[in-house]
Amino acid sequence: MRITDVRVTPIAFRDPPLLNVNGVHEPWALRSIIEVETADGHVGLGESYGDLQTLANLDKAKPGLIGLDPFDLNGLTRVVYAAVGSNPDPGQSFAPAGDKARASALAAFEVAFLDLQGQLTERPLYDILGGKLRDKVPYSAYLFYKFGRHKDDPGYPADDWGEALGHEQMVEQARRMITEFGFGSIKLKAGVFEPEFEIETLRHLRKAFPDYPLRIDPNGGWSVETTRRVMPQLTGLLEYLEDPTRTLAEMGEVATFAPMPLATNMVTIAFGHIPETIRLNAVQVVLSDHHYWGGLRATQHLAHLGRVFGFGISMHSNSHMGISLAAMTHVGATIPNLAYACDTHYPWQVEEVIAGGKLKIEDGSVAPPEGPGLGVQLDRAALAQLHRQYLDCGIRVRDDTKEMRKYYPDFNPKKPRF
Amino acid sequence: MRITDVRVTPIAFRDPPLLNVNGVHEPWALRSIIEVETADGHVGLGESYGDLQTLANLDKAKPGLIGLDPFDLNGLTRVVYAAVGSNPDPGQSFAPAGDKARASALAAFEVAFLDLQGQLTERPLYDILGGKLRDKVPYSAYLFYKFGRHKDDPGYPADDWGEALGHEQMVEQARRMITEFGFGSIKLKAGVFEPEFEIETLRHLRKAFPDYPLRIDPNGGWSVETTRRVMPQLTGLLEYLEDPTRTLAEMGEVATFAPMPLATNMVTIAFGHIPETIRLNAVQVVLSDHHYWGGLRATQHLAHLGRVFGFGISMHSNSHMGISLAAMTHVGATIPNLAYACDTHYPWQVEEVIAGGKLKIEDGSVAPPEGPGLGVQLDRAALAQLHRQYLDCGIRVRDDTKEMRKYYPDFNPKKPRF
Repeated sequence: MRITDVRVTPIAFRDPPLLNVNGVHEPWALRSIIEVETADGHVGLGESYGDLQTLANLDKAKPGLIGLDPFDLNGLTRVVYAAVGSNPDPGQSFAPAGDKARASALAAFEVAFLDLQGQLTERPLYDILGGKLRDKVPYSAYLFYKFGRHKDDPGYPADDWGEALGHEQMVEQARRMITEFGFGSIKLKAGVFEPEFEIETLRHLRKAFPDYPLRIDPNGGWSVETTRRVMPQLTGLLEYLEDPTRTLAEMGEVATFAPMPLATNMVTIAFGHIPETIRLNAVQVVLSDHHYWGGLRATQHLAHLGRVFGFGISMHSNSHMGISLAAMTHVGATIPNLAYACDTHYPWQVEEVIAGGKLKIEDGSVAPPEGPGLGVQLDRAALAQLHRQYLDCGIRVRDDTKEMRKYYPDFNPKKPRF
Repeated sequence: MRITDVRVTPIAFRDPPLLNVNGVHEPWALRSIIEVETADGHVGLGESYGDLQTLANLDKAKPGLIGLDPFDLNGLTRVVYAAVGSNPDPGQSFAPAGDKARASALAAFEVAFLDLQGQLTERPLYDILGGKLRDKVPYSAYLFYKFGRHKDDPGYPADDWGEALGHEQMVEQARRMITEFGFGSIKLKAGVFEPEFEIETLRHLRKAFPDYPLRIDPNGGWSVETTRRVMPQLTGLLEYLEDPTRTLAEMGEVATFAPMPLATNMVTIAFGHIPETIRLNAVQVVLSDHHYWGGLRATQHLAHLGRVFGFGISMHSNSHMGISLAAMTHVGATIPNLAYACDTHYPWQVEEVIAGGKLKIEDGSVAPPEGPGLGVQLDRAALAQLHRQYLDCGIRVRDDTKEMRKYYPDFNPKKPRF
């Protein structure tokens, strides 16, 4: 069964004004929807970034996919390596600098290939990946400081979460997250305000939810010295500390005085980074992300590396649709050492590109969709609508800093911010 | 499609008197043949060791397999972890000491499960493993010092390879290997005689086959000092030096003065050994072996680790039948960084348990059998015959030293021997 067509459709969907170290989310988040079709009309789905560079890379790899068998992941790798990146040899060692462009292109198509494998064998994707170890995959409540509305009218009503710039507003955000979705752990996106303020928010959360594991992610916004200064206040409060600083060397330094595990999705984001990560003992939890690690098989390789070197595995998230959530959930169900509830922006999204609307988060968890492959299908009307929004919104590369300067013209995203 | 029956049949097959550091091969080599049957009568095959401890471990795991789905490799892992080894949690980190018993039991069944996956989807096993990167997998001429015949009459005619205790006899052995099978590289099993004598054999091989990559495997029979002494004679002669010494620490020491890559199937034989191997930079080529690394997926994880840390991958072999050769070849076809021709004892075996007789080695290579799964089926009459030989031969645990003492009562296998 050969591949006869590959389609990549950029989309834009509504995104709330969530704050982070770089600024604030724009009104539209970009993604790309990947369809890989076989001669008999099966369509495998993937989802990736929607920026111009990603779209260009996917375009470069596309022609080589025609004629491949969906089981030929090595053939796919060869095609992507020939089209994207500097060295076409799939047997080469991973570059110490990483190669996010190549790994991302590979991942986008690999998920679609695996979806097809599931469809062709009439098995859920978790079976293709080795069988599920758990019936549902836990996610965490992902809290953001946020504005009440976008600065410029995006042409749609403001989200109904309201502003969250103070401690009690954040407690209310957490309460709604927990009430609506049943999350059992809490992560605060930080790096927005002075560390002491954000830690005070954490203390409010701790008081309101005494039994919930708490995490904070300053997004690399702190210096090593700042991290050292606030470490006594964080101690005893956190399940893990995510990316306080921006470089692997700095994380290694923080690790020498941090009593809690350090997590990352910023300094160890490619297999080429693993040797130095191990050498420095810089990270105890790798927040995997199949979108840039190279796909679901790569995620399993990463998890296996965790068992070899004793680091824990969880998952990172960007703003995403149900295709990504289904893929994350299928692979998450197969990873034995998935040690922490995963991140997801999914509750912040109101639009969806899959048929039947949004996947359900219940008891803070998602069950891998049953049915062959990913278990999700495209809503073609929704895809067309989201693609129109992409064409109309004018955003082609995410720029949270530019957006923040609409509110604060002097906003300076220099790192470390604190 | 559920598993309804699991059978493990110990077999014994004729083995020539091949010499190594521990002594000499006994007249019968032991293996176990694993059959995993589904409700609709598909039979997945595996092959493992035939010693009593392995048989006991396979027996312990067997009952838990009934009712599993052949795609549920995680379920299989859970069953094996519960039955064999000390910690039943499949998400645990790998023990630094390794756990060969557990990994071997897992591998024996995993190959059979994967064979079933191929059969159920009507695809060759290499497709299940990600698609083949090469149409045939290269093997090397595996040379042994050997006696002309076994000391005690085993009840079958002596092999037709004759004695090989001198340099020219070894050149003749190599010539026949190359003529009959087309091998393109040569490996000498060593640790039998004084290093200088064995290196002289290498020089004869170099002269007779000037363009063939040469390897020597002293099987951990040398001390670090002996290795240092002979290093000048080995320099420029070898593609790689395999296991000169017996411990990871010693290999790390040798690596500080060895100009050629060091290979191993003795000191890095489990995922738990990887961190120390990396720390010491002790090994540049890992000779993988799915039988003790945990299966074919584990072999792919190991190969991926090679790309992360920059070590090369090849394969180790024991005396084996065609089921193992098929499995090695299928996974070998899918590994991008298979950097060296693999080892196999297969030319030394005259009996076979698979239908149609022995798989073909041509141009020094084996093509993965086409047809669903492994692409090999049992010859049930042969299986019955080889099982009878097991029952009759009296050997239950391999003991090359005891066998050697039949020739040399004072033989002392102390390590290092030289």
